[in-house]
Amino acid sequence: MSGQKLQVAVAGLGRMGLRHARHFATLTPRAELIAVTSPVQAELDAAKAEFGSVRTYLCYDEMLRSEPTLQAVVVSSATAVHADQSIKAIEAGLHVLCEKPLSTSAEVSQSVLDAYEESSKKRPGQKVMCGFSRRFDASYRDAHRRVVNGDIGRPSVFRSQTCDKLDPSGFFVAYAEFSGGIFVDCSIHDIDLALWFMGEDSVVKSVSAVGITAVSPELRKHNDRDNGAGLIEFHDGKIVQLFCSRMMAAGQEDTTEIFGTKGKVAVNQQPYLNLVDIHEPTGIRREVPSTYYDRFREAFVTEANEFTACCLDNTPVPVRLKGAVDAVKIGCALQEAMITGQKIEFDELGRRLEKSKI
Amino acid sequence: MSGQKLQVAVAGLGRMGLRHARHFATLTPRAELIAVTSPVQAELDAAKAEFGSVRTYLCYDEMLRSEPTLQAVVVSSATAVHADQSIKAIEAGLHVLCEKPLSTSAEVSQSVLDAYEESSKKRPGQKVMCGFSRRFDASYRDAHRRVVNGDIGRPSVFRSQTCDKLDPSGFFVAYAEFSGGIFVDCSIHDIDLALWFMGEDSVVKSVSAVGITAVSPELRKHNDRDNGAGLIEFHDGKIVQLFCSRMMAAGQEDTTEIFGTKGKVAVNQQPYLNLVDIHEPTGIRREVPSTYYDRFREAFVTEANEFTACCLDNTPVPVRLKGAVDAVKIGCALQEAMITGQKIEFDELGRRLEKSKI
Amino acid sequence: MSGQKLQVAVAGLGRMGLRHARHFATLTPRAELIAVTSPVQAELDAAKAEFGSVRTYLCYDEMLRSEPTLQAVVVSSATAVHADQSIKAIEAGLHVLCEKPLSTSAEVSQSVLDAYEESSKKRPGQKVMCGFSRRFDASYRDAHRRVVNGDIGRPSVFRSQTCDKLDPSGFFVAYAEFSGGIFVDCSIHDIDLALWFMGEDSVVKSVSAVGITAVSPELRKHNDRDNGAGLIEFHDGKIVQLFCSRMMAAGQEDTTEIFGTKGKVAVNQQPYLNLVDIHEPTGIRREVPSTYYDRFREAFVTEANEFTACCLDNTPVPVRLKGAVDAVKIGCALQEAMITGQKIEFDELGRRLEKSKI
Amino acid sequence: MSGQKLQVAVAGLGRMGLRHARHFATLTPRAELIAVTSPVQAELDAAKAEFGSVRTYLCYDEMLRSEPTLQAVVVSSATAVHADQSIKAIEAGLHVLCEKPLSTSAEVSQSVLDAYEESSKKRPGQKVMCGFSRRFDASYRDAHRRVVNGDIGRPSVFRSQTCDKLDPSGFFVAYAEFSGGIFVDCSIHDIDLALWFMGEDSVVKSVSAVGITAVSPELRKHNDRDNGAGLIEFHDGKIVQLFCSRMMAAGQEDTTEIFGTKGKVAVNQQPYLNLVDIHEPTGIRREVPSTYYDRFREAFVTEANEFTACCLDNTPVPVRLKGAVDAVKIGCALQEAMITGQKIEFDELGRRLEKSKI
Repeated sequence: MSGQKLQVAVAGLGRMGLRHARHFATLTPRAELIAVTSPVQAELDAAKAEFGSVRTYLCYDEMLRSEPTLQAVVVSSATAVHADQSIKAIEAGLHVLCEKPLSTSAEVSQSVLDAYEESSKKRPGQKVMCGFSRRFDASYRDAHRRVVNGDIGRPSVFRSQTCDKLDPSGFFVAYAEFSGGIFVDCSIHDIDLALWFMGEDSVVKSVSAVGITAVSPELRKHNDRDNGAGLIEFHDGKIVQLFCSRMMAAGQEDTTEIFGTKGKVAVNQQPYLNLVDIHEPTGIRREVPSTYYDRFREAFVTEANEFTACCLDNTPVPVRLKGAVDAVKIGCALQEAMITGQKIEFDELGRRLEKSKI
Repeated sequence: MSGQKLQVAVAGLGRMGLRHARHFATLTPRAELIAVTSPVQAELDAAKAEFGSVRTYLCYDEMLRSEPTLQAVVVSSATAVHADQSIKAIEAGLHVLCEKPLSTSAEVSQSVLDAYEESSKKRPGQKVMCGFSRRFDASYRDAHRRVVNGDIGRPSVFRSQTCDKLDPSGFFVAYAEFSGGIFVDCSIHDIDLALWFMGEDSVVKSVSAVGITAVSPELRKHNDRDNGAGLIEFHDGKIVQLFCSRMMAAGQEDTTEIFGTKGKVAVNQQPYLNLVDIHEPTGIRREVPSTYYDRFREAFVTEANEFTACCLDNTPVPVRLKGAVDAVKIGCALQEAMITGQKIEFDELGRRLEKSKI
Repeated sequence: MSGQKLQVAVAGLGRMGLRHARHFATLTPRAELIAVTSPVQAELDAAKAEFGSVRTYLCYDEMLRSEPTLQAVVVSSATAVHADQSIKAIEAGLHVLCEKPLSTSAEVSQSVLDAYEESSKKRPGQKVMCGFSRRFDASYRDAHRRVVNGDIGRPSVFRSQTCDKLDPSGFFVAYAEFSGGIFVDCSIHDIDLALWFMGEDSVVKSVSAVGITAVSPELRKHNDRDNGAGLIEFHDGKIVQLFCSRMMAAGQEDTTEIFGTKGKVAVNQQPYLNLVDIHEPTGIRREVPSTYYDRFREAFVTEANEFTACCLDNTPVPVRLKGAVDAVKIGCALQEAMITGQKIEFDELGRRLEKSKI
Repeated sequence: MSGQKLQVAVAGLGRMGLRHARHFATLTPRAELIAVTSPVQAELDAAKAEFGSVRTYLCYDEMLRSEPTLQAVVVSSATAVHADQSIKAIEAGLHVLCEKPLSTSAEVSQSVLDAYEESSKKRPGQKVMCGFSRRFDASYRDAHRRVVNGDIGRPSVFRSQTCDKLDPSGFFVAYAEFSGGIFVDCSIHDIDLALWFMGEDSVVKSVSAVGITAVSPELRKHNDRDNGAGLIEFHDGKIVQLFCSRMMAAGQEDTTEIFGTKGKVAVNQQPYLNLVDIHEPTGIRREVPSTYYDRFREAFVTEANEFTACCLDNTPVPVRLKGAVDAVKIGCALQEAMITGQKIEFDELGRRLEKSKI
């Protein structure tokens, strides 16, 4: 635990960026948060107040130029600049932890991977990882260990959902303009998990999807929906069912089931906030985490620590970058399939069989 | 299923008596309900309307005299006459299914057993059973099968509770005048289960108990409490924890755990009414059975069918009568221990070491 | 409960037929089982032994001719003759309870409905019902009551699965020759539930499906799969996700979730056989019902009693017949979509937009 | 988060001491671990290797003399020296976090409180706390908040158990020589919780207990048992049921229920290690934490952070010290009651009514 600490900067201090900053500043013993950047001065001021010695920048590029000891950047800015900021850091030789998704475009996502592959030829120890937080969750890891161990036989059917608590503020409508749509924003996690559990070399064969606007018809102006259901076929005879929603009453409900030829593992089939049962005249009640962060906070902290360790110790990144590109490709295809009503098919190399109609 | 049907009468048409009448009239294919008796004419009229050809009697003794084809009596009248009616039926050579408890007095309970032992010398096929309904519940039976099978090693600690939903009507206060007290009325089931699971020949070594009146201080005038907790030691080194209450918010909560040297089985550790989860803004909710009958209805029907079968086929009764006497003895001792604050001890034959102080 | 009993015959004494015979013979107080028919003499002999006075017939038509007092027929023969036997009984003026599905063909199913509509013009009290047993399950009814009551707002997304325990005997391969396929055999229940929960007048807009043979590749010779996942759109902006499988490890797992704009109800999200928790060195375990009958036995008994009551009292049938035709139509379309890989679309009257390709 | 860090030493590097050292070294941002002490050189060497700059001492007293900047000591040495080390640190003016119990003797525990009360007259900012870790557990806190909020009415009955997983190594037999017995070692937590939930000024009225040696008869030589059940009455009409065991099959099972006049809250009624359900041919299984540390690790980290904050910010300690003395007094009385078979009574000031017989 002794030795030099990884010198880290966080780009973006919004909802998730501030949390990353805290995780690296106080819950990652081997890292030191030395700089933050945000286009919002108030966010920089607040970070200065909270983190003391940290240096603050309104301009991301200036930060890269001005921090000679910087070793790693956590990109948690707006999705629209994820790829650009990541590529700049990659080209500056820095380690990068980029929030999901790399981009809402499969092509742009690919460009990050390309930049990394190019850069890492010269710098074999450079680490670039997309932050699929569920890979760091203790329950998902336990489930994955069992699947890898053969406990369920051959994993064959994968069902997963990412469902947000209903937010009557209209947040998700504004957010939809840039989110890439519900399949790219929410289901990206489930797609990443599907690849992780069913085989990271699985090649998509087809996607289909349907969707509705049950609570927010305004989403239609952004070509989005508030509830979507999708199907994925892989070329090796495995199938995936997805559900994404912005309409949960009780709380965040992210559930996954992996069905194998000899058994099944399920994660969060019975959601709860903690170990408390509340007995009332109306029955027995459990509360549910309200947000993904309530559910996955520990996973984000583990992610910060493991990313730090792989940079310092030059060990493999826990989540390989190519999967993040595949996940965006599949997520975009599902979103398109939902909007057009068309099934989209891919050949055995995963190349799309016909062009997009939108 | 063919063949002659058991000719049955039900004595008492109160809360539970009417249910027994229905179970024997319509859900016990091998039985025929031919007569009912109740001191309340309105109850008899209602039974006549519901059951059609059944004969009705205001006087129990007259029924015994007037029904030459009668084979079995279900005694579900007021507890105060359980023993008397059972003994009369026993002496008339009839099979008897008597609701629990045989009596609120250990001595009177013993007199029923004595009458049966005397009568059955002449009539070896006569069946007398006390209706400990939980013995017929599918979950308790599954748990018992596992314990008998050795799945938990040697059963050593038994924890059980019978807890009624809070009834703000004051019913339980009036009821306490004749119920024998909460340990005799409620915990009698748990005591019977303890004997069944820990060994029917277990001999009580000591009982201790404490109790409070949390919601119904009026219970004190009947020497009763609304919450009681008790400890039982058996001479073979096994212990029992009991809890009885009239104060449950969510519903009837009858839970049992049997701890063995190699494992544990629990019954109803997670109560629920049915398989429905209700997701609401306040969380996820399950409803709970409101009453013991909601929880144990199927067990009562099974009891009716199995009692009928053992009478018709001359097979052993599913619950031996001696246990019902032991359960009343232990229940009365717990009630006394709760009221006096004294531990009560018994010798290795189960005989009390000093006299009661109340 | 008094009065004349419905005179019932059961056609077919296979797996489910024998159970229906028992339910009507012993657990339906207002019905009397007077006749059974089966092409298998041994089954008739066994029924004679079990039910005593029942009359037995090798020929269904002969039974119809020979039983002048017969009032109702329970058709639980092979699926291939469901429609034919039902129509003959309908034309004979009898009440009919037909096991699901009416047929594996949407057209043939429609012919049963046509026969009934024709017949009931002359006989307004005639009752014909398809036995969708889940409609009689206490948990599904509780969930439905909440949805109808508006507790979850507008029901919008419906997810349901019918998943059988893995049967290594090969039973399901042989069965697939006549079952109509997994979407017609299993998902028919979920489709019926979808119509019941989302609105019985819902009009299908499209279906899509994918499927694999994870454990039984031989199913492909019958154009069937052992795992299927489907999507249904209705014209009023509601969507349905289905999963059907023959590969469950722990037991029958039939789960349903109904997501509304204000809440959700789930049925059997946490399956269990009974209320027993088994604590072992490997953790805490619950057993699961092995078969649909273990799970739905009570529902079948309720079905028998309610069908009997509606015939005797001339009240509406609990499940209207048109839904059974719609369910077959949608099930067949899903099966076709799974095999061809094509999405199938329907106009606003539910008429198929292009012809089937298989 | 900026500012000076609390300078902390840890005394004792056994099972729990090493964990405390880690929590303060890496998971408590506002603390700095500067020294450790242990009578075992190998433990000091390992600490040196793990924590780098920390200073190590074989002698506790020498550490107190040699560390002028030291501000706080975490006492997690053998229980036998808890009180002595705590008092020395108190007299040296240091803040103290002492592992539970303060001592296995009520009198010695009282001497720690006396020393603190004397010392804090001169040093009003001095903090001394006994580490009842469950007070820092998120679930217990949620339950406590609900009780304080009146959600369950008046808390009236408290049931709690601390049950260890069966350890066939014989560890607990050797441990029993110094542990104070199962009620002092295990139930001390439940007693502390009872005081916290039922009212910290609750005065004990009586205790009773029974116990057995189901798996480790050798415990009898240390006057201990492997399963104990106890009852506590408080003078304000509240009662407590306790269960402690060394015999759990599945894992650590620490469960608490608080029954109030209007509702109930339960903590850990359904134990589980994580959110994974394992579906196998034998049913659905959940794993359970193996040890108290698996269950309460987060609580220990929270304890370290909150203790640090109260020292640095001079805010009240989260757990007042007097309760730790009361808990030992009640625990010792329960242990005695279990061994002697006698009920022990206390007057309205909590003074014992007759002398101990052992």
